Amino acid sequence: MPVPFSNLSEFAAVIKAAPAMDSAARAGAEARNGQLTKPPGALGRLEELAIWYAGWRGTDRPTMDAPQVVIFAGNHGVCAKGVSAFPPEVTVQMVANFEHGGAAINQLSKAFGAKMTVHALDLDTPTADFSEGPAMTEAEVVSALATGWAAVDPNADLLVTGEMGIGNTTAAAAIACALFGGDAGDWTGRGTGVDDAGLQRKTDVVAAGLAVNPSRDPLEVLRCLGGRELAAMAGAIAAARSYRIPVILDGFICTASAAVLEQAAPGALDHCVAGHQSAEGAHAALLAKLGKAPLLSLGLRLGEGSGAALAIGVLKGAIACHSGMLTFAEAGVSAG
Amino acid sequence: MPVPFSNLSEFAAVIKAAPAMDSAARAGAEARNGQLTKPPGALGRLEELAIWYAGWRGTDRPTMDAPQVVIFAGNHGVCAKGVSAFPPEVTVQMVANFEHGGAAINQLSKAFGAKMTVHALDLDTPTADFSEGPAMTEAEVVSALATGWAAVDPNADLLVTGEMGIGNTTAAAAIACALFGGDAGDWTGRGTGVDDAGLQRKTDVVAAGLAVNPSRDPLEVLRCLGGRELAAMAGAIAAARSYRIPVILDGFICTASAAVLEQAAPGALDHCVAGHQSAEGAHAALLAKLGKAPLLSLGLRLGEGSGAALAIGVLKGAIACHSGMLTFAEAGVSAG
Repeated sequence: MPVPFSNLSEFAAVIKAAPAMDSAARAGAEARNGQLTKPPGALGRLEELAIWYAGWRGTDRPTMDAPQVVIFAGNHGVCAKGVSAFPPEVTVQMVANFEHGGAAINQLSKAFGAKMTVHALDLDTPTADFSEGPAMTEAEVVSALATGWAAVDPNADLLVTGEMGIGNTTAAAAIACALFGGDAGDWTGRGTGVDDAGLQRKTDVVAAGLAVNPSRDPLEVLRCLGGRELAAMAGAIAAARSYRIPVILDGFICTASAAVLEQAAPGALDHCVAGHQSAEGAHAALLAKLGKAPLLSLGLRLGEGSGAALAIGVLKGAIACHSGMLTFAEAGVSAG
Repeated sequence: MPVPFSNLSEFAAVIKAAPAMDSAARAGAEARNGQLTKPPGALGRLEELAIWYAGWRGTDRPTMDAPQVVIFAGNHGVCAKGVSAFPPEVTVQMVANFEHGGAAINQLSKAFGAKMTVHALDLDTPTADFSEGPAMTEAEVVSALATGWAAVDPNADLLVTGEMGIGNTTAAAAIACALFGGDAGDWTGRGTGVDDAGLQRKTDVVAAGLAVNPSRDPLEVLRCLGGRELAAMAGAIAAARSYRIPVILDGFICTASAAVLEQAAPGALDHCVAGHQSAEGAHAALLAKLGKAPLLSLGLRLGEGSGAALAIGVLKGAIACHSGMLTFAEAGVSAG
């Protein structure tokens, strides 16, 4: 499929023209749910999850057979400011680890039957240090959005987007602060585990980035404060919407990236659920801004799409119940 | 395997003599966890879960290949008091639904690769109404414990116990109240969905049961206030311990049943994790009494082992990461 944009204003137009869910399929799924052999509401969030999935897939009795996990990796000029507990060369080392099957996301993708692909974005050319000026040119951010868009398999029936990029919780904090206001300290956390001094440096860097990049237009925020892997996730989430592929969002960085879409085109994340609440400090606040309740809350803070991949299991269970259970009439059970 | 008890005092001796986890395997798993390609602690509860599982399975790098789900069904004399929104004949109808593959637990067992068996316990002979006297004789409760024990496959490597029994949230509330004190109203909830008048009737029935059955010895509590499916779950959980098979606990009824073991033999649930927090009102309080933090909290209140079966996915992900990831040295990644 060709990428349907070549600049930021075309991308904005694409996400504003995104398709809606199939309301007839959703209504059919709601009706089916009411007839299944269980007390009303007894499967809790599994019921709404299956109905949501049915609506996006356009059938009242969906299956999930082809989940896809896409991982994007990028490097960040802002690492020069000492914002991470790990050196930037870890990004390329971890990409090799993904390619050799050794990372957490490899195991989770395999455990839940997802096809996983890894996309390294110009790792030899980090983005510019956003605390001194825009992280990317328009050509750079559009190229990353396009890489993300093109990474999505139109035949997938679920998408998880993950990332790897030493320094990228700093970029995500800056994006969240630019989109939703508050102080840099409200959105800046410990990432992979910086100490108190590192946290202060990160917070100062985020504040500097907000000062030097004054635009609050969401796509400009992505260009000026983001990174290639964040833009690629946004492009992939937008592509999934165009194909009506439901998305499970991962942690803080993925959610910051997705939030750009929602702020640029309200409703742009209606095809997304929050897979988990990360232990990264500001993730809960960010999810609350988006009105997304996490499916899991297990203290993960790894990135890579790991929390979202784990949540594939919850969605798998929800769909299995919805589409596989018998109705009261089929089973000959008294409906109370 | 023969059932190693023929009366309640022999059962008490069995659970007091239960084996401990393999501390060397646990220590090995902790050491391995520290070397995997992720920041320390970044997989949150998945890390402790994998280490716990490794300890019980006796290897620092376990796999989970043979999960088992056992469902027990029983009928309750206390239903005559109008404590449920569903008629008691639903128990036998739902057993048929389990056998024909139409219930939620069938779909979840299949989705997570678990072998599921269903055990109907004397459905034509409900227990006695516990609000008027003991629910079971010693022979009856021991028979149910033995059925539960014998249902466990010694070669399974994970156990989920589930139940079906119209009226059994009333029995579970009475057990919880007898074991942990407080008022009947503290432990009595809406079950499958009784209205306000039904809730009041349930609470009164629980209070009457506690008054007419004064013993607070945990196994006597199970006999006098429980039901056959509750006793069978306790027997199965005890059998799993004897084989060092880890257990995922389900909702309120399963947890009340398990609590009998813990109160009779402190530490008897060390091989168990709480799969989820049910929407049934008192489940959170009951888990807190046992010191068990639920893996999931998705508003389920179905029973059948459904919440625990859903949590198999979380455990599967945890084990996959622990045993499948490369170490920093193996992957050539800088450890920060």
